[in-house]
Amino acid sequence: MRIERHALARLLTSVTKAVPGRNTIPILATVRLVGKDGKLTVTGTDLDIEIAGSIPADGELATCVDAKLFAAAIGKIAGTEVELAIEDNVLVVKSGRSRYKLATLPVCDFPTMNYGDFAVEFEADMASMFAPVAYAMSDEATRYYLCGAYLEPKAVTATNGHKLSTVAHELPDFAPVIVPSATVALAPKGSAKVRLSGTKIQFVTDDFTLTSKLIDGTYPDYERVIPRNLANIVVVDSAALKSAADRVAIVATDRTPSVRLDLTSEEVTVSSRGDSEATDVVPCVYDGPAQAVGFNAHYLVEVLGSLPAGPVKMAVGDCMGPVVFTSDAAPQQRVVCMPQRVV
Amino acid sequence: MRIERHALARLLTSVTKAVPGRNTIPILATVRLVGKDGKLTVTGTDLDIEIAGSIPADGELATCVDAKLFAAAIGKIAGTEVELAIEDNVLVVKSGRSRYKLATLPVCDFPTMNYGDFAVEFEADMASMFAPVAYAMSDEATRYYLCGAYLEPKAVTATNGHKLSTVAHELPDFAPVIVPSATVALAPKGSAKVRLSGTKIQFVTDDFTLTSKLIDGTYPDYERVIPRNLANIVVVDSAALKSAADRVAIVATDRTPSVRLDLTSEEVTVSSRGDSEATDVVPCVYDGPAQAVGFNAHYLVEVLGSLPAGPVKMAVGDCMGPVVFTSDAAPQQRVVCMPQRVV
Repeated sequence: MRIERHALARLLTSVTKAVPGRNTIPILATVRLVGKDGKLTVTGTDLDIEIAGSIPADGELATCVDAKLFAAAIGKIAGTEVELAIEDNVLVVKSGRSRYKLATLPVCDFPTMNYGDFAVEFEADMASMFAPVAYAMSDEATRYYLCGAYLEPKAVTATNGHKLSTVAHELPDFAPVIVPSATVALAPKGSAKVRLSGTKIQFVTDDFTLTSKLIDGTYPDYERVIPRNLANIVVVDSAALKSAADRVAIVATDRTPSVRLDLTSEEVTVSSRGDSEATDVVPCVYDGPAQAVGFNAHYLVEVLGSLPAGPVKMAVGDCMGPVVFTSDAAPQQRVVCMPQRVV
Repeated sequence: MRIERHALARLLTSVTKAVPGRNTIPILATVRLVGKDGKLTVTGTDLDIEIAGSIPADGELATCVDAKLFAAAIGKIAGTEVELAIEDNVLVVKSGRSRYKLATLPVCDFPTMNYGDFAVEFEADMASMFAPVAYAMSDEATRYYLCGAYLEPKAVTATNGHKLSTVAHELPDFAPVIVPSATVALAPKGSAKVRLSGTKIQFVTDDFTLTSKLIDGTYPDYERVIPRNLANIVVVDSAALKSAADRVAIVATDRTPSVRLDLTSEEVTVSSRGDSEATDVVPCVYDGPAQAVGFNAHYLVEVLGSLPAGPVKMAVGDCMGPVVFTSDAAPQQRVVCMPQRVV
């Protein structure tokens, strides 16, 4: 079987993202190669996510080979074309005068994911939909149901309990699901078919299929924590506030550096202190009472970074209630950040 | 004191290379700032290496400030100029509407390195002289005297006992010294004044001074381990052999992957094996007996990388004796690599 080397290398880069870095089950360290019907299909899985991709190739082949080693061999071998063949249960990779004989495992040992029946199918650019909310997902296993993005027909939402981002959209009707964070990170760029069952999600493009288990849990009623009709609105340039927060946070000695925002009618004074102190001043438009609000600096920088550049509206309630960030340039998006005690 | 911000940021990048990343002595985490005579001098040290650099600045100033925090502040603050001032034992850094108040330590607490008297001074481009040998330095503390480069008037040499690289040159007479590997890595690029005493080396350029302790030890008589008059010479293209070794080594499962070279009159067969096998063939010119020689693949790749591109001569003795690599394009350099048992 002769294959264009760069196409195979690109395919392996995609597929090996599902192969676990460390594991104790030898077969999971492999990719499955199946050549038939004029194409070579390569599959990798960690039992939670399965990625399969195809490229044109004549000939038949069916084997499992160590994913890292095969990808390294295809990456390092010279020439634009490689030849793959099975000889005595060994995968022979040839190009020019270079030759690899790679150990294989039986193709029947490779775990197959039971897809079940997909009840719903629609087209969407999931990577773009996940992008403005993904940073708010939790990574704490104790709240496993927050370690993903909540996908509903009307919105996609993520929160870790301290920061929340939700973007409204309109999709065909389906029962809401929680997509694991690893799968969110691997969603293909651009338009793809999305298939849903009660336990799985699948993204399909021309030559690429990603199938993932869903998180089995109950997502909290996030609308309840988004305050409405907050009276005090600060309008400030997103980039200016972000760089001020980033700049002052370096003096904080805590592991979670906090910044303090002192709001007056014409400017926000951004400050932080540890053994040293830093202050910065950002112009704003605000007609509420002078008050101070504190944030985890990392969260504030992430929140501002998830909204479009330009003016951002901060809706502030009393000093310890959630603060809502919106931008007229992204009317579908609402971001909430819990404040910290100011000192 | 007003200072051009980018010049100060560049200076801090150089000087903070001497500041230890982790240490338990607070003063060593700082840089010393001294402004007088129309310049600001910034100094950092880990007690073994001291780096000092200057930039033009009017005004007086003398303090010690946390190196990482000061560098971050100068890196993040906006504007092309910053203002430094001491107020109430605090270093105030200002630019536009941004302001830092950085905690300081007394300037008298900063350790000063006793330079002693430098007996020898010459001009040299030490970074270029160290470059083709540095990779052969040891990093095993048990053989501390190999953890550096051996500088003699006639040559610079490094070895870890398995690989050795030596480059002949002509410098004024001095007693040979062992320059620590950290200092080798920090030697300034381009021509610099080099000063030597029995215990210290100093590199001086216009605005930059690096002073380092030397390694107090006895360097082995390396000439004794370089075989002479080896009869069997293989001539092979350096890049071709290097990429063949790199390519086959991926199948080795050992922590130190070995490659086997089978020499015949017209080609070198490069191979490696673990659970899988790899072979590659490189053309050569050789009129000795057919034989095999093994190397640590990493060492072979490093050795070939330290010689100029193009034909390289491998002088091979019996199969377990040291192999000498030379290139007609670098007649001053000799490289030795100890072979490994071939299997």
